[in-house]
Amino acid sequence: MRKIAESTVRRLSLYLRFLEEFEARGAQTASSAALAGRGGTTSAQVRKDLSFFGSFGKRGLGYPVGPLIARLREILGLNRRYRVIVIGAGKIGSALVQYGGFRERGFDLVALYDNDPRKVGREGTGLVVRDVAHLERDLERRPADIAAVVTPAEAAQEVTDRLVRCGVSAILNFAPVQLAVPEQVAVKTVNLVLELEALSYALGERS
Amino acid sequence: MRKIAESTVRRLSLYLRFLEEFEARGAQTASSAALAGRGGTTSAQVRKDLSFFGSFGKRGLGYPVGPLIARLREILGLNRRYRVIVIGAGKIGSALVQYGGFRERGFDLVALYDNDPRKVGREGTGLVVRDVAHLERDLERRPADIAAVVTPAEAAQEVTDRLVRCGVSAILNFAPVQLAVPEQVAVKTVNLVLELEALSYALGERS
Repeated sequence: MRKIAESTVRRLSLYLRFLEEFEARGAQTASSAALAGRGGTTSAQVRKDLSFFGSFGKRGLGYPVGPLIARLREILGLNRRYRVIVIGAGKIGSALVQYGGFRERGFDLVALYDNDPRKVGREGTGLVVRDVAHLERDLERRPADIAAVVTPAEAAQEVTDRLVRCGVSAILNFAPVQLAVPEQVAVKTVNLVLELEALSYALGERS
Repeated sequence: MRKIAESTVRRLSLYLRFLEEFEARGAQTASSAALAGRGGTTSAQVRKDLSFFGSFGKRGLGYPVGPLIARLREILGLNRRYRVIVIGAGKIGSALVQYGGFRERGFDLVALYDNDPRKVGREGTGLVVRDVAHLERDLERRPADIAAVVTPAEAAQEVTDRLVRCGVSAILNFAPVQLAVPEQVAVKTVNLVLELEALSYALGERS
């Protein structure tokens, strides 16, 4: 399959979310305009995004909600479950583990690691915090699909190198650094300070 | 000043972060290649991004670290402090309030709201959780620059409408919905499920 741009993948995720809402309300079809309105984009963009995967909508009839949901789930790789481990049992790491929304979407948070002896063994989140020294052995026994790196900045690259050596090929990075990884490893970075700085820029622009 | 693209603003934030690291290590100058390497971009892109704001680097000498930091902070609106309020005292909202990295960057988390009587009055995070019923009166007394919306999906739009009516013009949205706001209001959305879905797409693409 041709590679889809990151921005398109993001819009497909949003369309899927909206279509599921439409389905929950009993809708059989959805217009490109309805999808565009919710997704902050245009009807033309919706039609372009979806035409990429075959002809779906019929002019004037809108998209069939059920089949389009099935197709988007397939494209996004959501017809299976993913094993997700979290490295770093601080506040954000622990909040991640406790958030129910991931499991609903097929992402099972299966292990939480830390190197702080005061945290190892705790189980406030529903998962016992494991010593990160066991990371390699654990991954050898049961590989993980995705690792969330929620360590301090200075530890993130070393942990990432270890994960990559163990064959983890998708990383969700919360540490405020740019991680260096081999080409075949996918990284998404969530950096709240960057988001706040984008807002401070926007505020300055308006004043 | 001309409007800068969102992707450029994001790169400027990253360059600033790297320059601060270079400065902490005593560097006087930084090459476009050094900035590009850390930022996951190219030297040409760095030069293009920075030339937008006047001539900075001298060919062969690199960029002067101190002056470039000062200029980037000015462009990004970081030479002041911002008052940030958080709506939603669940796990993510509480983690936000406790995260020290924001204050370091000039973002002061000054109030935390919830509508759950069991949460109102608690002060585990260092801020007493206030009843969101007081939102309008509080903002009239002391306006906020930025609001983080960390409510369940179904409450997010209503809270956002109230914030916008109170004059808040920058919103950091953690709720898994696309918020509708007037054009003059800036919104950044942090959606962890979308990030995970982008990774599941990437994993599918590779297998």
